[in-house]
Amino acid sequence: MNKEKLEKLKKALPDVQQTRPRNQIPIDKVGVRDIKVPIGIYGAAGEQVNTVATISAYSHLSEEYKGVSMSRFSEIIHEAVEKDASVEIIYEILEQIQKRLGGKDSYIKMKFDYFIKKEAPVSKIKSYFYVPCVLEGRSVGGVRKVYLTTTTYYQSACPCSKEISKFNTHNQRSFARVTVELNDIVSIEDFVSLVESQASCPINNLLKRPDEKYVTEKVYSNPKFVEDMARDIASKLKVMLNNNNINDYVVVIEHEESIHQYNAVAVISAGKVLK
Amino acid sequence: MNKEKLEKLKKALPDVQQTRPRNQIPIDKVGVRDIKVPIGIYGAAGEQVNTVATISAYSHLSEEYKGVSMSRFSEIIHEAVEKDASVEIIYEILEQIQKRLGGKDSYIKMKFDYFIKKEAPVSKIKSYFYVPCVLEGRSVGGVRKVYLTTTTYYQSACPCSKEISKFNTHNQRSFARVTVELNDIVSIEDFVSLVESQASCPINNLLKRPDEKYVTEKVYSNPKFVEDMARDIASKLKVMLNNNNINDYVVVIEHEESIHQYNAVAVISAGKVLK
Amino acid sequence: MNKEKLEKLKKALPDVQQTRPRNQIPIDKVGVRDIKVPIGIYGAAGEQVNTVATISAYSHLSEEYKGVSMSRFSEIIHEAVEKDASVEIIYEILEQIQKRLGGKDSYIKMKFDYFIKKEAPVSKIKSYFYVPCVLEGRSVGGVRKVYLTTTTYYQSACPCSKEISKFNTHNQRSFARVTVELNDIVSIEDFVSLVESQASCPINNLLKRPDEKYVTEKVYSNPKFVEDMARDIASKLKVMLNNNNINDYVVVIEHEESIHQYNAVAVISAGKVLK
Amino acid sequence: MNKEKLEKLKKALPDVQQTRPRNQIPIDKVGVRDIKVPIGIYGAAGEQVNTVATISAYSHLSEEYKGVSMSRFSEIIHEAVEKDASVEIIYEILEQIQKRLGGKDSYIKMKFDYFIKKEAPVSKIKSYFYVPCVLEGRSVGGVRKVYLTTTTYYQSACPCSKEISKFNTHNQRSFARVTVELNDIVSIEDFVSLVESQASCPINNLLKRPDEKYVTEKVYSNPKFVEDMARDIASKLKVMLNNNNINDYVVVIEHEESIHQYNAVAVISAGKVLK
Repeated sequence: MNKEKLEKLKKALPDVQQTRPRNQIPIDKVGVRDIKVPIGIYGAAGEQVNTVATISAYSHLSEEYKGVSMSRFSEIIHEAVEKDASVEIIYEILEQIQKRLGGKDSYIKMKFDYFIKKEAPVSKIKSYFYVPCVLEGRSVGGVRKVYLTTTTYYQSACPCSKEISKFNTHNQRSFARVTVELNDIVSIEDFVSLVESQASCPINNLLKRPDEKYVTEKVYSNPKFVEDMARDIASKLKVMLNNNNINDYVVVIEHEESIHQYNAVAVISAGKVLK
Repeated sequence: MNKEKLEKLKKALPDVQQTRPRNQIPIDKVGVRDIKVPIGIYGAAGEQVNTVATISAYSHLSEEYKGVSMSRFSEIIHEAVEKDASVEIIYEILEQIQKRLGGKDSYIKMKFDYFIKKEAPVSKIKSYFYVPCVLEGRSVGGVRKVYLTTTTYYQSACPCSKEISKFNTHNQRSFARVTVELNDIVSIEDFVSLVESQASCPINNLLKRPDEKYVTEKVYSNPKFVEDMARDIASKLKVMLNNNNINDYVVVIEHEESIHQYNAVAVISAGKVLK
Repeated sequence: MNKEKLEKLKKALPDVQQTRPRNQIPIDKVGVRDIKVPIGIYGAAGEQVNTVATISAYSHLSEEYKGVSMSRFSEIIHEAVEKDASVEIIYEILEQIQKRLGGKDSYIKMKFDYFIKKEAPVSKIKSYFYVPCVLEGRSVGGVRKVYLTTTTYYQSACPCSKEISKFNTHNQRSFARVTVELNDIVSIEDFVSLVESQASCPINNLLKRPDEKYVTEKVYSNPKFVEDMARDIASKLKVMLNNNNINDYVVVIEHEESIHQYNAVAVISAGKVLK
Repeated sequence: MNKEKLEKLKKALPDVQQTRPRNQIPIDKVGVRDIKVPIGIYGAAGEQVNTVATISAYSHLSEEYKGVSMSRFSEIIHEAVEKDASVEIIYEILEQIQKRLGGKDSYIKMKFDYFIKKEAPVSKIKSYFYVPCVLEGRSVGGVRKVYLTTTTYYQSACPCSKEISKFNTHNQRSFARVTVELNDIVSIEDFVSLVESQASCPINNLLKRPDEKYVTEKVYSNPKFVEDMARDIASKLKVMLNNNNINDYVVVIEHEESIHQYNAVAVISAGKVLK
């Protein structure tokens, strides 16, 4: 259908959204949650990583209008994905929301799994390591902010268990969820490296026997509480904050305790907005 | 094992947690996530509702200590549940965390499904209606705050769809998630009633044919956008705020659009802490 | 509303379900999925455990009728829960479905978390241990069968990792999901005990330092692959099969590998219906 | 590390898996669950769709060996993805498992979201429609079978609600999960089309006002129970069975009732293996 004919059809139908609402209260955020699209993300080395993004987008709505034009969010998201299909689209989407929805603030959130091909420690065989990510953009009161959350899995061993036992430690699948307000260009790989450099031991999805020997011994030599991980990562994030690479941070550590059905958790923030 | 003997055994083992950490950074929150316990919650009418609570509890940790005694969180939770097994335990748990963990701040979060026996609109037959709830307590800087989140499901019909179509509306399963900082005693039932009073139509888990006729016609006569629901509920929450029943609020409306794979969302907050 | 008046109202409305369908094909199962109700379950020691059951119920429908009366499933479930609120209700529900829906076959499935108060190995302090359960009843072709699935969490240590490393093992949160067709009366506790007797080490949700020392050393002395656990549990289930306590079984072992992002899995069945 | 050196390192370490197990019972399936990899899938029109596959792979293990070489599953999956990265890899993976693990049976399961660009009914604007898929391959007793599961979302309106009400219907987000044993080459698009041809109304993720009018009126003119959908789809699957396009089928219909918190479900199978 050509654009002109569609516009005619649309105009022939009443536009309830443009009427006055009964309760004239401005709305902080109104929009769409969880539109799924295939997307290609460029990694630190320039190669494209195929993945699926789940995108939410919102606008501020003033007290004058009953509703937003919901279909525009989907339209903007689809157009942006068509154009570029990289994480850069968050800037395009923020701008288009403000331009076409007319609200004073706009919000975009993209959730996706990022993939890194990592080498095993001894055999050097490569395998995919997935990194759950969230990329958020907010344009509020004319100020634009971008937030990146990366979840990096690793193996932790318990220092107390090592100290009190004649042999062995209890160890477990663990992860660090780091959220930062980005200032400079920082890659997902940077945060994965940061976490792995502090972990009892990084993990891989393909390990041969000599690798398994390596990680079993390495994790024992470097046991860490959730508290240790939170502090060691926070101390590195502080440096990034001081260098103006990031403007804010929070780190959440979670160890899926092998000796319990519940998880141990520690949280440190910069004491600013992110908590 | 008697307490004395256990204390002796414990003292014979090194206490790594009490040592100095390498990075002397205070930790905002450290504790346990998702301990599940059976619990009885007293409803507005005084009757006990059986359910399962998933409890998380955290403490602040000063820069001087390497770790908290994690087992104490579980101990405190189990003792509190043994004693009372109602939502009142959040106060007990907050107090015990500060007393026995020694941190300056403490946090407790309980997630549970609450059950209300609701009458169908015409037949008056009763059925269980579940309300996902979160009860949070925080004691930060000596100030204690309590937050309640209730998720109330309802049916929404789309005003635009009604207006532009010769017959029918698109309608869908929908929910309002209301979080408030409690001041006065307010019951879960109060928030369910508040949401249902504004909804296109409340829903039930047992409807006979005359009830089905009623809800099909009722939802048509009262269509609401996510924007309408957010505003209409916010205007009621404002009254509660002015009456000092609550100190803060945020309402999140989500309609599981029958004509899309994604949800429509609207959010209004009091513009204070909750977002 | 009294029953008579309701019946009158219902009769005044057309009953589309009773008409002939266009495609006259019988339907294997038609009904309701995931009705949540609070429930009390009696443990092995006779005490009541509060929990929440998520219930699904289905009936066969012959080729003659366009639809079932869906509300009857909810009605039957609510009446059964009102009456008894224990796992015994599956028999009542199966019978009522056949009586009131008139289909030749009927099905009921209840999912719930069961709770056991378990003692820590050294300190003997008790804590709640949750056991995800599924109880299923089927009446097909006049034959009634009951299936119980229990998921028991434990800690596993890897035998290979122990053998090839100078010290330590990789160990992890693990679970065994055992499904059986019940013949005799067998309790949930029996299956938890069976799994724990074969595990590298049982786990608890409250462990003091002497307990932690115990489990760290115990898991090291008893390492098990998923293959070992599947075989060791299957050999015990075989005995139950031979004793006619159960008529069929399948065991699924899953170890949440601390050194990978994926799980290791092993499955053994009796080679009958359950897979 | 070169292959020769790695082989030497591996041989220097004991291979516990090759020893005899205590309980000499064969294992039906042993392997890895949920390895995530980025993947490209070729659509019906030949274009590549980027997505993420979650892959599980298993082998039979005879009673003689204590364990399988778990790392080989991951190795086989990574090599296959490297080579081709389309759904064709299931054949390659099945073959490699049998060749390199030596078990008599092998299994592979891939879960992924497939994406179709669908046109809106009036405006013809295109948007992504995601189709959760499962592709399974089994080589059991020398016989190879392939199963495809597609989940197609649509909008359903209730025939009873339409008949008994003066105006409106209750309608809701709904889906049909069709599993077939493939014989001939059949595309994901074929099953999406099959479901949409029977649905009250197909859905889209970008609809302009004239589209919304269309779907609101269309769904009203074509109301369907879960029973109707199950039968209408089964009658089409029967034709495919008779034409030898497929060897077996089961269809599961689920309507997320807008007037209840629970779903209505209907299931029809060919009465063969799939249930």
